[in-house]
Amino acid sequence: MKALVYLGPTRKGFEDRPKPEIATSTDAIVRITKTTICGTDLHILKGDVPTCQPGRILGHEGVGVIDSVGPAVTTFQPGDRVLISCISACGKCFYCRKLMYSHCTTGGWILGNTIDGTQAEFVRIPHADTSLYPIPEGASEEALVMLSDILPTGFECGVLNGKVQPGGAVAIVGAGPIGLAALLTAQFFSPAEIIMIDLDDNRLETAKRFGATGTINSVDGNAAETVMKMTAGRGVDTAIEAVGIPATFELCEKIIAPGGTIANIGVHGTKVDLHLENLWDRNITITTRLVDTVSTPMLLNSLRSRKIDPTLLITHRFTLDCILDAYEAFAHAGDTKALKVIITA
Amino acid sequence: MKALVYLGPTRKGFEDRPKPEIATSTDAIVRITKTTICGTDLHILKGDVPTCQPGRILGHEGVGVIDSVGPAVTTFQPGDRVLISCISACGKCFYCRKLMYSHCTTGGWILGNTIDGTQAEFVRIPHADTSLYPIPEGASEEALVMLSDILPTGFECGVLNGKVQPGGAVAIVGAGPIGLAALLTAQFFSPAEIIMIDLDDNRLETAKRFGATGTINSVDGNAAETVMKMTAGRGVDTAIEAVGIPATFELCEKIIAPGGTIANIGVHGTKVDLHLENLWDRNITITTRLVDTVSTPMLLNSLRSRKIDPTLLITHRFTLDCILDAYEAFAHAGDTKALKVIITA
Amino acid sequence: MKALVYLGPTRKGFEDRPKPEIATSTDAIVRITKTTICGTDLHILKGDVPTCQPGRILGHEGVGVIDSVGPAVTTFQPGDRVLISCISACGKCFYCRKLMYSHCTTGGWILGNTIDGTQAEFVRIPHADTSLYPIPEGASEEALVMLSDILPTGFECGVLNGKVQPGGAVAIVGAGPIGLAALLTAQFFSPAEIIMIDLDDNRLETAKRFGATGTINSVDGNAAETVMKMTAGRGVDTAIEAVGIPATFELCEKIIAPGGTIANIGVHGTKVDLHLENLWDRNITITTRLVDTVSTPMLLNSLRSRKIDPTLLITHRFTLDCILDAYEAFAHAGDTKALKVIITA
Amino acid sequence: MKALVYLGPTRKGFEDRPKPEIATSTDAIVRITKTTICGTDLHILKGDVPTCQPGRILGHEGVGVIDSVGPAVTTFQPGDRVLISCISACGKCFYCRKLMYSHCTTGGWILGNTIDGTQAEFVRIPHADTSLYPIPEGASEEALVMLSDILPTGFECGVLNGKVQPGGAVAIVGAGPIGLAALLTAQFFSPAEIIMIDLDDNRLETAKRFGATGTINSVDGNAAETVMKMTAGRGVDTAIEAVGIPATFELCEKIIAPGGTIANIGVHGTKVDLHLENLWDRNITITTRLVDTVSTPMLLNSLRSRKIDPTLLITHRFTLDCILDAYEAFAHAGDTKALKVIITA
Repeated sequence: MKALVYLGPTRKGFEDRPKPEIATSTDAIVRITKTTICGTDLHILKGDVPTCQPGRILGHEGVGVIDSVGPAVTTFQPGDRVLISCISACGKCFYCRKLMYSHCTTGGWILGNTIDGTQAEFVRIPHADTSLYPIPEGASEEALVMLSDILPTGFECGVLNGKVQPGGAVAIVGAGPIGLAALLTAQFFSPAEIIMIDLDDNRLETAKRFGATGTINSVDGNAAETVMKMTAGRGVDTAIEAVGIPATFELCEKIIAPGGTIANIGVHGTKVDLHLENLWDRNITITTRLVDTVSTPMLLNSLRSRKIDPTLLITHRFTLDCILDAYEAFAHAGDTKALKVIITA
Repeated sequence: MKALVYLGPTRKGFEDRPKPEIATSTDAIVRITKTTICGTDLHILKGDVPTCQPGRILGHEGVGVIDSVGPAVTTFQPGDRVLISCISACGKCFYCRKLMYSHCTTGGWILGNTIDGTQAEFVRIPHADTSLYPIPEGASEEALVMLSDILPTGFECGVLNGKVQPGGAVAIVGAGPIGLAALLTAQFFSPAEIIMIDLDDNRLETAKRFGATGTINSVDGNAAETVMKMTAGRGVDTAIEAVGIPATFELCEKIIAPGGTIANIGVHGTKVDLHLENLWDRNITITTRLVDTVSTPMLLNSLRSRKIDPTLLITHRFTLDCILDAYEAFAHAGDTKALKVIITA
Repeated sequence: MKALVYLGPTRKGFEDRPKPEIATSTDAIVRITKTTICGTDLHILKGDVPTCQPGRILGHEGVGVIDSVGPAVTTFQPGDRVLISCISACGKCFYCRKLMYSHCTTGGWILGNTIDGTQAEFVRIPHADTSLYPIPEGASEEALVMLSDILPTGFECGVLNGKVQPGGAVAIVGAGPIGLAALLTAQFFSPAEIIMIDLDDNRLETAKRFGATGTINSVDGNAAETVMKMTAGRGVDTAIEAVGIPATFELCEKIIAPGGTIANIGVHGTKVDLHLENLWDRNITITTRLVDTVSTPMLLNSLRSRKIDPTLLITHRFTLDCILDAYEAFAHAGDTKALKVIITA
Repeated sequence: MKALVYLGPTRKGFEDRPKPEIATSTDAIVRITKTTICGTDLHILKGDVPTCQPGRILGHEGVGVIDSVGPAVTTFQPGDRVLISCISACGKCFYCRKLMYSHCTTGGWILGNTIDGTQAEFVRIPHADTSLYPIPEGASEEALVMLSDILPTGFECGVLNGKVQPGGAVAIVGAGPIGLAALLTAQFFSPAEIIMIDLDDNRLETAKRFGATGTINSVDGNAAETVMKMTAGRGVDTAIEAVGIPATFELCEKIIAPGGTIANIGVHGTKVDLHLENLWDRNITITTRLVDTVSTPMLLNSLRSRKIDPTLLITHRFTLDCILDAYEAFAHAGDTKALKVIITA
């Protein structure tokens, strides 16, 4: 079969690889129908993710059709259409039984990282019963691809951890795909204000269309002051960090109201300064989280009842044969204005 | 009347001062019967608390008897015995109505800071109805003094914020009075493990007597490794920072288990390093808090039903006339082994 | 001044009464600009509310302008425009300090019940600082009247107590004004399904316009079966009782899913059958509540940011002089299709 | 092998039965070392549990040693010592993934009910990975038997659902084994008061030894009045129903404080009167629950750290050969003063 393979820092190839096979009794083989590219895939290609070794098929998002299942799989059978979760969960271990699937001792984020992933014609999914989801009748496959990773990540790490509430004031720092996913899902809780902060006017425009009540281009370095003005000097109840660098995290520290929550989504490569000399008496909360995808059933319900439209995030479409073009478009989002790209296998 | 007055950095005096008077209709004047000294008072004397100006009577803890009340006070009358909260709360403002009394717009921590305090024969208490508590019959006055600040601080900032739970593993970094208050109140929730970490063997001994299940002298720099060993490599569910310097906060970052909570109590003077490059995917929570004293009624109930014995914290006793000696004993706790000192007026 | 006075069972009058005066230092006198009639006022007129004695001016909802304040009122001054809460709260007592204002020991629901109410030119509001709310600039007075009682009641007793969640299935039994208020505010949390159940097709039509995803006319006695069909045999996560009779409460018992919550809003005059023989092992929750109006600040925020339009509930408008006509229209809602009537003073 | 078999209403036998075998790949066969008898077993013998048909081996509690495992079992191997949960959980279904194991679509309470149980030399455990627990080194087997059902039931259905809190007032109606289990586990949260109510003075004596702060013999019909007196007229924050008849549930309705929670544990055979005419405005919560055994890991931790001593509940010991005598002793608890009996296989 054809697959997108990581070949070492800055190198990738679209190669022939053997079709995967059932390895343990709880595995399923899924024929991919749609997949996509994540910012994390670009990180891997930069050589920033040491757990991912050359030779690995990338990709941890997608929908498809069950091709075969191991003898212990009870929920699915060949022919079933399924959503693939970016997180594999055994359902049995200490962490899974606390619903912290991200830390599953034999799973977590392994797809397209420590085992072969979804940017291929077929993929092997371990712990299939607890890592795949049946697709509701009539649901758009493109919309569903957004439920593999980006929507649950924005929702769980940003919105739920950030305790977004009706009537509250929210700021989201970073209007890339993940920040926009937080923006879309924050509206499940009807906050009064959602202020979107970014350096790219195009993305801020998109944010407005997606429901932001205010936008700030932070290029002038006055974002904190502007947020304070917009919130009557109090700051925001929820600040969602969706970039992953010290400057944006520290912006969150400046704009958080007493009693508020900073919810980190960004993947950080270095330490940040935590100004406890200002924050020790401000009754704030800071959270970090790798997505657990425990909200997937809820998001499927919301999709079915049309409470959310994740296809808003999709800007480009390619066939699997053209996945190298898809990577180009996605990697140069500043020019192409790409958010999420759909790849049809 | 006699009062302990801050005279500027490193200087204090025991002086004659006029008896306070009702200034607004919600004030009460309280005749102090017992008070104590807080670590914060020592900070003020070092000149570290710029809001507290020379000439200020210190002290934000104590019990006493109502001497007079303003015309709008409805809960208390002269002769009532009362517990003084370290936090003044109007009960009306945006923050008070969210039970975040620490940020009351006309209160918060003002006693012995921006208005005269309790280390005197009399004190004026603003917002008396919502800043004083009636004393349960038969309760020990010395025990009650511990409910002005140290017990609610350990409980709210450390134990509640830290989500201490039955069966959980807790580490408390710092075995001074506030860390020990966290230790005492953590036991309300019956965690399986409470590991106490300090540099002073005497305090660690005390911690054992107070209920710690394990102690670590961190002088050798191996505290993190030791905690990991004691918790089967997983770390603690709750790490309570009760010192207020970067090293102890960063120790908490090293020992927190995935899904755990770091609850900061310490008063920090500088920023700390937050190692998000390690923590971004660990699903942890960090909290800060100035005590709100919302747990005071609960603590009074627990005291009355003998579920807690705060007098364990008391090591020395003085009369108000000897308050300068009390400061000496408290300031040299390494030698005197002082925890809390009781001052009888 | 003119006022609507309860004269004993079935009897009311529009009479001259003396203008109220400040009685205690925390009182305010408010000149009413808009008020309305509540279903509870009709209960009083039937003689069903023994705490309300003949001679009482009715009404517990309204907006107005501060006419005068007692000397201990610090938040408001004459000329301020204010929203009147149906619940008076001292802010000091055991219950107020738990944010359970409904049970304030010197307040609670007293307006138009045990003290004179708002269907008059002026009203005396006790505990003014904690029972009135400043009106946001530009807010519609008619919309604000809905925030005195009906919106916080639907939201707190129905939606919050019922734990309405994104993706969840909700049924609301009763599509009168209070059920419709629950319907409007349930949408703050974006449930997947809101099924509205009533006997009146007109009200069910209204419910559809207000956002119900499904409606059931329960006249045929098959409502429970229909709900089960609509929820794939599982039942609803939240069942909100908004009528107040045994039949509707017992319908909730039949349609609640395992793990779900029945939130009672209805004012019940008799006991109901609780079928614990069916429910003991179903992991359900049942709640009751008199509104605390703790959500008023949130609702004001939501109104200001246009996340909700409470004027949808308003069907009729009268002047205070015609309040007897307003009562006629409201009491015969089956014919007049009245939901809420606005009375301008 | 030998087993205790239900032979139809009022009839049981100690019979030879074939040793169970692995039926599906996720099964384990466990050799029983200790088991016990539950009140539910007596209900079955009365013919009150129609799901349990004649021929069934009874028992849903016990500890033992893994004899063999199916090919899909990954957590256990022959020779491992295990605790058997009374609830079987697949870990995959809609309810299991919400941690509501009691409603597992292929599990729940099936042992000794719809499949053969633990009062035998061997038992087949379905969904072994998620229905068995490894035994901590050094733990007493007798103590562990109390963790199969009675302790998690008292804790989850009574204490957790009842929101027992430090400083709170709790009443437990029924001082049988399950009420006493609630009493033991309520102390994890250090409430100020635990009032135990029963008709049997012997059991009330036991309750005092186990930590009750007050006891009431309700034979005189004045229990409600007595509770109100003991709580300064306010009632209790938590009322735990541990009997299962209308009178005891209705007693809970009378003694619950505004804002409080009635947590039902009792297995009810008939409806009860819910006095909503008194309770609609009291802001109370009522909960029901079949135990989910999600607290088992926590209880194992607490046992290991000696925060609880479940052997207090054990009054009698028998060998499996004498299990008919064990039933006699347990069924006549009024005379024998039996609480829990240990049966050694």
